[in-house]
Amino acid sequence: MREVAIIGIGQTIISEHWDKSLRELAGEAALAAMAEAQVTHVDSVYVGNMLSDISNLQAHLGSMVADWIGQRFTDAVKIESACSSGSAAFRAGYLAVASGDVDIALVVGVEKMTDSPGSEITSALATAADADWEVDHGLSFVALNALIMKRYMYEYGWKGIDFAEFAINAHANAVHNPNARFRKPITENSFIKSPMICDPINLMDASPVGDGAAAVILANADILTPNSAKIVVAGSSAATDTIAIHNRKAPLWLTAAEKSTQKAYAQAGIGPDDIGVFEYHDAFTIMAALSLEAGGFAEPGKGPMLAKEGEIKLGGRIPVATRGGLKARGHPVGATGMYQIVEVVQQLRGEAGETQVPRYDFGMAQNIGGSGSNIVTHILKRIQ
Amino acid sequence: MREVAIIGIGQTIISEHWDKSLRELAGEAALAAMAEAQVTHVDSVYVGNMLSDISNLQAHLGSMVADWIGQRFTDAVKIESACSSGSAAFRAGYLAVASGDVDIALVVGVEKMTDSPGSEITSALATAADADWEVDHGLSFVALNALIMKRYMYEYGWKGIDFAEFAINAHANAVHNPNARFRKPITENSFIKSPMICDPINLMDASPVGDGAAAVILANADILTPNSAKIVVAGSSAATDTIAIHNRKAPLWLTAAEKSTQKAYAQAGIGPDDIGVFEYHDAFTIMAALSLEAGGFAEPGKGPMLAKEGEIKLGGRIPVATRGGLKARGHPVGATGMYQIVEVVQQLRGEAGETQVPRYDFGMAQNIGGSGSNIVTHILKRIQ
Repeated sequence: MREVAIIGIGQTIISEHWDKSLRELAGEAALAAMAEAQVTHVDSVYVGNMLSDISNLQAHLGSMVADWIGQRFTDAVKIESACSSGSAAFRAGYLAVASGDVDIALVVGVEKMTDSPGSEITSALATAADADWEVDHGLSFVALNALIMKRYMYEYGWKGIDFAEFAINAHANAVHNPNARFRKPITENSFIKSPMICDPINLMDASPVGDGAAAVILANADILTPNSAKIVVAGSSAATDTIAIHNRKAPLWLTAAEKSTQKAYAQAGIGPDDIGVFEYHDAFTIMAALSLEAGGFAEPGKGPMLAKEGEIKLGGRIPVATRGGLKARGHPVGATGMYQIVEVVQQLRGEAGETQVPRYDFGMAQNIGGSGSNIVTHILKRIQ
Repeated sequence: MREVAIIGIGQTIISEHWDKSLRELAGEAALAAMAEAQVTHVDSVYVGNMLSDISNLQAHLGSMVADWIGQRFTDAVKIESACSSGSAAFRAGYLAVASGDVDIALVVGVEKMTDSPGSEITSALATAADADWEVDHGLSFVALNALIMKRYMYEYGWKGIDFAEFAINAHANAVHNPNARFRKPITENSFIKSPMICDPINLMDASPVGDGAAAVILANADILTPNSAKIVVAGSSAATDTIAIHNRKAPLWLTAAEKSTQKAYAQAGIGPDDIGVFEYHDAFTIMAALSLEAGGFAEPGKGPMLAKEGEIKLGGRIPVATRGGLKARGHPVGATGMYQIVEVVQQLRGEAGETQVPRYDFGMAQNIGGSGSNIVTHILKRIQ
């Protein structure tokens, strides 16, 4: 396999973009990435998106984006794996370049959620759960995560407030990210006072929907990069699990995260201690805790302890959500995985400003589809 | 790039499968392909599907299929590019194996359309057109093809009856395909008498919806195959065009087909004369004509002549729709591309029975998404 480098990044601010269409959002991020990479042509386009069929009445985003950004006739497809669609698209683009079939690929994650009423988005997001075995019985996606969190609290003795630091840390970092949806810090007091959505998940345990797009240019690593630092893909791995949670032997353990993380570590020839920044999938605080455990950063049931001890902050043992995470940067579902990749690149380049992590040789991005049923892990490495 | 072989195929009959769920259909084809390939494990799963979000309220088909067929924890995603989703998934699986990241990949195309009312399917299929510039103005997908056909007839002087042979040939071949939806021959008289759907497209110009799934196992070609003939991927290429037809400089020329076909020919080191079987995308008879022209089998505007002269029949210059094509085998949209691949494999193995083509060193499968806006071409080659 050829080595693959990320030679350009682009992103839009995450917001309620009522004045921009799906193609305009994707185009803004894609053209920014192409401009930064100093390329005017790409060989392939990979679009990560989950909801456009239902929320925008538009399938076929590969062709739509390719045409809109001036790459008409280019090979282009959409990749979908629920909320991990963004990084699944990245992985498809990575494999295409690694194979030698493609020299330069654009990957863009895009989602436009806020044009639709909330009830419609709740139904659309429920397509990530099992239609026959979960959704038909009335379970929403928040409800599924609430069941996991309740069981976790019961098994390990945690209280709701023990998850507050995940949200507080994310918001503290988002203050410095101009593309984040919520740039306001929160306190333990605002966490306590936030309304309950689906017991035990309160508003501050949950990430917000949003509209946004993030993109990268991938290239054969032999191609010269115009950027100050050369960033390559050192590990790329994905693993699935059963969608319906009741079918899992250990519903409090993200087996798919463990498997994809372990494989990515092995590919990169490193372990958890070498990761200087971890952009994890904190769609809900319970997913933050479970991700830290499955990734080897905390013992089973001890994820919240890492947060309480400050080890997830910028100077801690494993900085997470350094640009705000899903919680505060925002979670435009099919775009999220690409925001994570872009943010890790910013860190490894040393361009993360006030939220720059101190160690930035290796960074990890992990994107979760469903309640742990499709987990894609990438490890990026700074070469120079 | 590593050479990639197809070591197993599977398919369901195309029908109204009201007694089978989406996962059961996909599983039936996938497990048949695995059994034929004599593998019990795959490294990756690629699912081609277009409509499940809207028609089955189920996204996330990668995880769903992987789990259902006993491959829980396996890397799995869905690929979508409207009606070319099936072959786009095949191409993604091909690149993954060619890259060296994956040794054995399952690709399955699946679609379940007949549970939904016809009006809902018409709306769902319209997501393949441009939501902002076509569908918002009331154009359905049939209407878009009718506009192209009308213009073609005007420019080149053809009448509706001149397209009859495309449908007659497809039905004649489907009689011998146990998996075809319609196994009844039709005559020129039945073509003439068939009701008009959207002038000039009548019922016999159009392919039927259906439920079905088709699958293959791809493997590093160094792996021994249990089959009598070794079939490898000699060419794989995809190209896009603008979705909205009014934006094309030459709306009667499938530029994306020309580009992807030419590239596939170059990769395989052959030309149109070497193709012994061409499974083309006859969603409408006008697309059959345009595909023959863009593929180099007929001059611009002369596609119907090839059909009228009998050259598209089994013994003709370029046999098409040899197992019934979209017209008679059926068009479960996201699965169609995989049916085409499976059918070309049957021909190259010499296992097509009464519809066996006489020359079967090379076969071509071409899948069209939108009205020519995403075209994926594969050339398969028999090695032994």
